[in-house]
Amino acid sequence: MNGKQALENREGLKVPPFEFVALEACLEAACSCLEIEAKTLEQEAHPALDKLTSKISTLNLERVRQIKSRLVAITGRVQKVRDELEHLLDDDEDMAEMVPAEISLDANGSSTYEGDMPNIVNPRDHLFGAPNMLGRDSHGTHTSTIHSAVSKQLDVEELEMLLEAYFVQIDGTLNKLSTLREYVDDTEDYINIMLDDKQNHLLQMGVVLTTATLVVSAFVVMAGLFGMNIQIELFEKDKTGPEAFFWTVGGGATGSLFLYIIAIAWCKHKRLLE
Amino acid sequence: MNGKQALENREGLKVPPFEFVALEACLEAACSCLEIEAKTLEQEAHPALDKLTSKISTLNLERVRQIKSRLVAITGRVQKVRDELEHLLDDDEDMAEMVPAEISLDANGSSTYEGDMPNIVNPRDHLFGAPNMLGRDSHGTHTSTIHSAVSKQLDVEELEMLLEAYFVQIDGTLNKLSTLREYVDDTEDYINIMLDDKQNHLLQMGVVLTTATLVVSAFVVMAGLFGMNIQIELFEKDKTGPEAFFWTVGGGATGSLFLYIIAIAWCKHKRLLE
Amino acid sequence: MNGKQALENREGLKVPPFEFVALEACLEAACSCLEIEAKTLEQEAHPALDKLTSKISTLNLERVRQIKSRLVAITGRVQKVRDELEHLLDDDEDMAEMVPAEISLDANGSSTYEGDMPNIVNPRDHLFGAPNMLGRDSHGTHTSTIHSAVSKQLDVEELEMLLEAYFVQIDGTLNKLSTLREYVDDTEDYINIMLDDKQNHLLQMGVVLTTATLVVSAFVVMAGLFGMNIQIELFEKDKTGPEAFFWTVGGGATGSLFLYIIAIAWCKHKRLLE
Amino acid sequence: MNGKQALENREGLKVPPFEFVALEACLEAACSCLEIEAKTLEQEAHPALDKLTSKISTLNLERVRQIKSRLVAITGRVQKVRDELEHLLDDDEDMAEMVPAEISLDANGSSTYEGDMPNIVNPRDHLFGAPNMLGRDSHGTHTSTIHSAVSKQLDVEELEMLLEAYFVQIDGTLNKLSTLREYVDDTEDYINIMLDDKQNHLLQMGVVLTTATLVVSAFVVMAGLFGMNIQIELFEKDKTGPEAFFWTVGGGATGSLFLYIIAIAWCKHKRLLE
Amino acid sequence: MNGKQALENREGLKVPPFEFVALEACLEAACSCLEIEAKTLEQEAHPALDKLTSKISTLNLERVRQIKSRLVAITGRVQKVRDELEHLLDDDEDMAEMVPAEISLDANGSSTYEGDMPNIVNPRDHLFGAPNMLGRDSHGTHTSTIHSAVSKQLDVEELEMLLEAYFVQIDGTLNKLSTLREYVDDTEDYINIMLDDKQNHLLQMGVVLTTATLVVSAFVVMAGLFGMNIQIELFEKDKTGPEAFFWTVGGGATGSLFLYIIAIAWCKHKRLLE
Repeated sequence: MNGKQALENREGLKVPPFEFVALEACLEAACSCLEIEAKTLEQEAHPALDKLTSKISTLNLERVRQIKSRLVAITGRVQKVRDELEHLLDDDEDMAEMVPAEISLDANGSSTYEGDMPNIVNPRDHLFGAPNMLGRDSHGTHTSTIHSAVSKQLDVEELEMLLEAYFVQIDGTLNKLSTLREYVDDTEDYINIMLDDKQNHLLQMGVVLTTATLVVSAFVVMAGLFGMNIQIELFEKDKTGPEAFFWTVGGGATGSLFLYIIAIAWCKHKRLLE
Repeated sequence: MNGKQALENREGLKVPPFEFVALEACLEAACSCLEIEAKTLEQEAHPALDKLTSKISTLNLERVRQIKSRLVAITGRVQKVRDELEHLLDDDEDMAEMVPAEISLDANGSSTYEGDMPNIVNPRDHLFGAPNMLGRDSHGTHTSTIHSAVSKQLDVEELEMLLEAYFVQIDGTLNKLSTLREYVDDTEDYINIMLDDKQNHLLQMGVVLTTATLVVSAFVVMAGLFGMNIQIELFEKDKTGPEAFFWTVGGGATGSLFLYIIAIAWCKHKRLLE
Repeated sequence: MNGKQALENREGLKVPPFEFVALEACLEAACSCLEIEAKTLEQEAHPALDKLTSKISTLNLERVRQIKSRLVAITGRVQKVRDELEHLLDDDEDMAEMVPAEISLDANGSSTYEGDMPNIVNPRDHLFGAPNMLGRDSHGTHTSTIHSAVSKQLDVEELEMLLEAYFVQIDGTLNKLSTLREYVDDTEDYINIMLDDKQNHLLQMGVVLTTATLVVSAFVVMAGLFGMNIQIELFEKDKTGPEAFFWTVGGGATGSLFLYIIAIAWCKHKRLLE
Repeated sequence: MNGKQALENREGLKVPPFEFVALEACLEAACSCLEIEAKTLEQEAHPALDKLTSKISTLNLERVRQIKSRLVAITGRVQKVRDELEHLLDDDEDMAEMVPAEISLDANGSSTYEGDMPNIVNPRDHLFGAPNMLGRDSHGTHTSTIHSAVSKQLDVEELEMLLEAYFVQIDGTLNKLSTLREYVDDTEDYINIMLDDKQNHLLQMGVVLTTATLVVSAFVVMAGLFGMNIQIELFEKDKTGPEAFFWTVGGGATGSLFLYIIAIAWCKHKRLLE
Repeated sequence: MNGKQALENREGLKVPPFEFVALEACLEAACSCLEIEAKTLEQEAHPALDKLTSKISTLNLERVRQIKSRLVAITGRVQKVRDELEHLLDDDEDMAEMVPAEISLDANGSSTYEGDMPNIVNPRDHLFGAPNMLGRDSHGTHTSTIHSAVSKQLDVEELEMLLEAYFVQIDGTLNKLSTLREYVDDTEDYINIMLDDKQNHLLQMGVVLTTATLVVSAFVVMAGLFGMNIQIELFEKDKTGPEAFFWTVGGGATGSLFLYIIAIAWCKHKRLLE
């Protein structure tokens, strides 16, 4: 029962094994770095998107495109770290292999220490570098094996807690990035609807202007007809006075305006114009 | 067999353990809060979308965009709670660790009570704070271990029922939110098709107007030609009467109308106009 | 061996337990109802989509939008039932808990019957209402436990077959709905391409008409120039005859037609017009 | 040990059980049929898409739409067969139940043979029709059970190999179909960009033509002004010669051309025209 | 304990079994080949996309479309290799069957060697060709079985490390390809927004030009009206001088310019023009 007590003492003093400290430092560094990058990107993305919404220019589009590229890259990296952590947490066997072999050292006194510190970039490469515990433990006595199993179990739980904490952090970063991605996509949808809507307003303006041009052309026709050199009584100086001219001009103008109002009203009735 | 009977009496009186009451209160608060937010959002979303459908303006677009942002945020939170509940329900081990250790207290009388109330925001952090049952139970007698196992099993089932109930509720909220999301997306598709269709109607109107302008311009050409100062017999006052003028005007007008009708009929035949 | 024989006799007579009949009735009702709704929707969707394809109007768009909303709602309900059935089929433990406890009644004669009829709307709520078999069976003798296990196993298989049958049916309904969804989406893509293509044809028509207007305007310029009051020999009555007028008109018309043909040919060469 | 030897002999002679031959025939028929349909569809899809790319017409769009519908339908069927095969391969229990019960016949001589040939259309319906091996084997002796288990294991592996082979084939068909789907989607994206690009070219042509019309209209204004009847010295025959007419016409033409060149250059400078 | 020591010696000399060398060579060839293809595609894709962004032409679109087709094809192949490796790594049983049977040869001396080298293209076909270890090992002694199990376990781990290394490599290639895919999609979104934005600028230019045409037409009307042959005092040579002509022209020009400025200002106020 001595080995067990010693272990509990150490537990009480809360001196975590060296490997856990190193692993925690690595995870801390990786997660913080990714979180800071995500935050920086978020802070840059919002003004860039707002600028693009207010004014679409090649420069603003290019900036948003670069932000999207960076977003994809960071999301990929965060996703990878998150997947590795989730994979470790789901697979109890892998976790057991990650726990350093110090317990076995206590019991046997032999130099079989072969702990491996998982590399964050591609932890799977190294996770399986340690020989199988089962095989090694068979050298020890039955009692020490039980002790090992108990304290190993405790270490696995400690490791699980450690990984869980960073999993929650990296999961939060991933959520932030996917929310940002959704925001970028929604902004693009918004810009597309806005552009389509503006296009329709421009086409409506075009219809109004073309209607006006048509009516003015009709007025030109009238003036052109009275400008023809085919003689009628109206053109004779001694038969008609200047009032004929003004009646003609006034009649043409009134008729044109009337035509224009009818055309626009018809378009509004047909819901082509607002 | 006494411990077992005591347990059954307590079961008969239906006094759930304190931890379950606390957990139920937390879940109740979290689920209700999310459900109310989802309902509020739904009630705001429908009129906002209907307004956007009837009139596309920067204001309405901005409102729908904010509703989409809130929808993404709430969906993320609901999804997180749902995933945690599902994870707990799927993983029987985790659930067993969540059941408070009061049974072990009954049997041994020792103060090893270390129940943990899962925090809803990030339950995984705390779920593994309790020491391993297996290790602790090895202090007790064989009989009490069996009793513990039986009553623990019952507690796990009670916990499962509790979690199931809130899982169903939160799943319903998630369904409501994803239906809302689908509705927003369908409305956007609808707006896009409507805008494209209106655009085509405006372009059709443009074609009709340009055709009319072309025909009127042709009439202008005719009037302009007769307004040229190159003398022909038609222009001589004593050879032609006013009826020549009216024939010219009438001929021009009829010709123009005829041209216009042919052009529009051709366009309708080609399915360019409706 | 009596209990076992009795069971086999009952098996031979093929009298399924009451709970299975009830469950089958519930599943039959739920699956049929959903299938009928899916079929009705499908029968309504095809003509509505065909109408929308032939003529895009607010009415037709609104109808298709409502069909999409109903499609999302029914798909959600079918998906839920399917997921529950799949969950039950995958999880053998849950299924074992669903099998009514009549066997245990045979062996012990005690009143521990606590079968639960799963509710289709949210079966998970009720699935765990039955006390654990393991705990209860410990009252019986070792022999009856084996018999129970054997016949229970048979009941689980019968239940599995029952659930499988409805799973296949509901899976078929889900497939039908997702095919319908794909059809709706494809129709929307088709409408979008059609609208864009028609838009291009309208713009091409616009280009043709504007070209014609330009050429006619050039003709107007010519007529206008000869209508200027600056005197040239051509305007003198005694120097030129009516053939000058016709030459001018003819030249102008020919020139305009020539310009128009060149412009249209150039556009066709540039692949702007078809 | 006789039963075992007999089995091995049969194994040596490579006479696969009747059920495997039947199953292989079914799988062969189903997979070949689906693969041929997929190949036919692929061969029809490529020319249809190429035609649509070169010329968008209602006919070509309708053909591509039908190809998409067929693609969705075939993909659904292939996916279903693939999922069933994957499900069988993943679930060792189901596979064990599929192995015909001939071994048990060897050992007991009883008529408990109840092999079932899985139906490809909905195999799950029938997969569980065989009674549980465990229950039946308990009638046999301990030795025969071991033999059964060994030879059954061999049969399961043979079945696994058979299913694997068809799984690879159907997976290849599915890959081909999803590649085709991607190709169709890419073609649609391509058509959309092409249509949008052509639309812009048409609008550019429209801008060029409207600019030209505007300039010609300005020329008309000039001619119109000199056609006014307000007398100036220029209009007096004896004061100005025909060179005034030609100077006016030439000046107007030059000015118009100059205006047009400036306008187009400005548009090109603003990147509106290419 | 001799077999075990021998094994450890061999381990110390690091002579990997022949099958592992062969498998490594296959994986090396496959992964390198796919990685080189992915890199080549990436190097071709970026300039092609940049060219398409700067100028949309049928040629550039066709090139990007071909790059997308190749991207889909390579991604499919990489995904397949990755899925196979992941499947092997997840399924410990399959891996155990892949380890060559040399250990069993050591212990028994019998010729039961039946190692199979997995084929990379469709490894599943061949993975199950080896007879079951369990069945075969039952011929050996109990001691050798333990030794086999221990050394087999070591081999499985070595194999796992080998597969892990290539899994990481192929996963990296897949990430690169999916990043490229995202880049292509983002570029398409970018091109679409750019095209829509340019379209709006062209329509704005159209509105400006149509407004100018309308104003010029109004000027034509004025000139046309003064060109009518209806006599007014203004047309009498002896009553008005040339200043009347210039006042008319100047007034018309000023009025037109004034109208134009008001129209454009109104459009800018309405946010139709920028």
